[in-house]
Amino acid sequence: MPTIADLDTPAVLIDIDRVEANLQRAQAHATEQGYALRPHIKTHKLPRFAQRQVELGAVGITVQKLGEAEVMADAGLADIFLPYNILGARKLARLKALNERVTLSVTADSPDTLFGYAATFTAGKPLTVLIECDSGGGRCGVQTPAQALALARQIALAPGLRFGGLMTYPPLHGVEKSNAWLSEAVALFEQAGIAVPRVSSGNSPDMWAPAAAPVTERRPGTYIYYDRFQVKERAAGLDDCALSVLVTVVSRPTATRAVIDAGSKSLTSDLLGMEGFGLVMGTDLTVKGLSEEHGVIELPVASDWPRVGERLRIIPNHACVISNLFDSVTLISGDEVREVVPVAARGRVD
Amino acid sequence: MPTIADLDTPAVLIDIDRVEANLQRAQAHATEQGYALRPHIKTHKLPRFAQRQVELGAVGITVQKLGEAEVMADAGLADIFLPYNILGARKLARLKALNERVTLSVTADSPDTLFGYAATFTAGKPLTVLIECDSGGGRCGVQTPAQALALARQIALAPGLRFGGLMTYPPLHGVEKSNAWLSEAVALFEQAGIAVPRVSSGNSPDMWAPAAAPVTERRPGTYIYYDRFQVKERAAGLDDCALSVLVTVVSRPTATRAVIDAGSKSLTSDLLGMEGFGLVMGTDLTVKGLSEEHGVIELPVASDWPRVGERLRIIPNHACVISNLFDSVTLISGDEVREVVPVAARGRVD
Repeated sequence: MPTIADLDTPAVLIDIDRVEANLQRAQAHATEQGYALRPHIKTHKLPRFAQRQVELGAVGITVQKLGEAEVMADAGLADIFLPYNILGARKLARLKALNERVTLSVTADSPDTLFGYAATFTAGKPLTVLIECDSGGGRCGVQTPAQALALARQIALAPGLRFGGLMTYPPLHGVEKSNAWLSEAVALFEQAGIAVPRVSSGNSPDMWAPAAAPVTERRPGTYIYYDRFQVKERAAGLDDCALSVLVTVVSRPTATRAVIDAGSKSLTSDLLGMEGFGLVMGTDLTVKGLSEEHGVIELPVASDWPRVGERLRIIPNHACVISNLFDSVTLISGDEVREVVPVAARGRVD
Repeated sequence: MPTIADLDTPAVLIDIDRVEANLQRAQAHATEQGYALRPHIKTHKLPRFAQRQVELGAVGITVQKLGEAEVMADAGLADIFLPYNILGARKLARLKALNERVTLSVTADSPDTLFGYAATFTAGKPLTVLIECDSGGGRCGVQTPAQALALARQIALAPGLRFGGLMTYPPLHGVEKSNAWLSEAVALFEQAGIAVPRVSSGNSPDMWAPAAAPVTERRPGTYIYYDRFQVKERAAGLDDCALSVLVTVVSRPTATRAVIDAGSKSLTSDLLGMEGFGLVMGTDLTVKGLSEEHGVIELPVASDWPRVGERLRIIPNHACVISNLFDSVTLISGDEVREVVPVAARGRVD
């Protein structure tokens, strides 16, 4: 059996034992707390892990792009949530084709988006639409529960659309405020006599919080791999991190500087408010500087270690973005290489 | 002829008229100033543009990864410089195969790297090695001219290696200091009776500086497309920028917020010391916030423009990293779509 010592670098290593433990632990929490888990597959972009998430009890998956949804549908995933405003004739045609073959739901946060959906779908095979709510995240979403209700009424008027509920991407450290927003919206819908079938929220940093009304479904993604940011946010420990980037020290220009063969093209420039572009596994060292193909590690004291040619493993700041940079990842168990897997949904930009 | 209005988004647009003008202007400067131009193809990763650079007078091309070199060699590029320490049996075997079929040169900055080269190459088909010098950039490279000389002497002892000269990646705004470092090194080599065939330096922000001893060759990359950073560094004007990302406004949550369908997966998180993640072409607006699939534009005053569904073009902070995110780019002339081209050397991580 080959080991990671046999791999060329840089390479993305996925520890499948940690993956399995991470998936099981999250599903157990969801089951125990009684919320539906709908994992976001943007983190791994791999059909096999999406299938495993569903096998373990996920109600379906979440994707962020139509192209990701198509790859997952091709792989047999049957229930797909695409929480995005889909616009334009070409994308709407693809959405319609997708809706023919899987249980699909999408979002809208404007009459414009709904107009496109309404013109595309028919009562024979309607599209399920959730209203995206800006509950404090400051990205997409209606600004008030009243706006959400107005859009739901627009949905009710379209023969080809079904109201699927409410969706939000809560702000970091703001899940209580977000839930309060959603509760107010649900109350307004009840007053109006409109049932809210699903209230979808959540992301990995918040995943261990107990279930809280009115949320019925959570969409964490990073929890399959975790990363340095999730550890900082206390969603996981370093030993739970399943994705690392195997690199080689290519230069030791000074006694306190080591240069690795992974730069922003392998680790990305994502800082997420932290210092450094990744943590050297088993140490306190971070990747201090990055250019496209080089990473610079500063050693706190003059040291012969690491030598030129030595391999290190980097826990990246943000696992999801790494999956989008590599055409394939290497599944490992301990130090053993199990399989090199193409990242099927990588680079699906539209 | 289809136009950019017919394209789905996000899409990378390459204005081929601007490309041609940028290439010609840079080559004219190199010719007039008498230095050799060896463009870095990491920016475009497209064989056709590498070929055009050589047709116009470039002495060869620069790549940053063995995989990029292989793609370019396959496309017929005959003179390739790979300024990187190549380590490990697998990469050395690939390097040897490459050296059989193109005029290849590489760098080394340590005895360890040279040891691997010396053990791999033979006098029948020797490898040309330049010494990488840290002339202030703080990345790879020997720290002193004396170290460079010591490595050149090690090269002279290896039957399979040829000393090819000195190479540096100068610090931004530090080209004079860098040239002084190189001049000191060249003087030391002359004293030692060792000819220095090439002194390779330079990057796009410095490209309009007059030729300066002892540099004989420059390796700018971004000048083919330019970007927001190059404009800030006054290497080009906004009207020279040949790469833009076509996006759609997918949400107008408030009168001062517009959300586009391009996030860090399309624009990267590269800030390069600037505010915002890209400039909206034809405006002063920048992409203020990014998540993976969303970009947030804040409008200075409440405005109906841009509407949901409207298209914008974003001049990214850093063009090179964009080429690595998209499987294909769209060549345009004015608003006309000429061709969709796969990015042949995209994702060559090793």
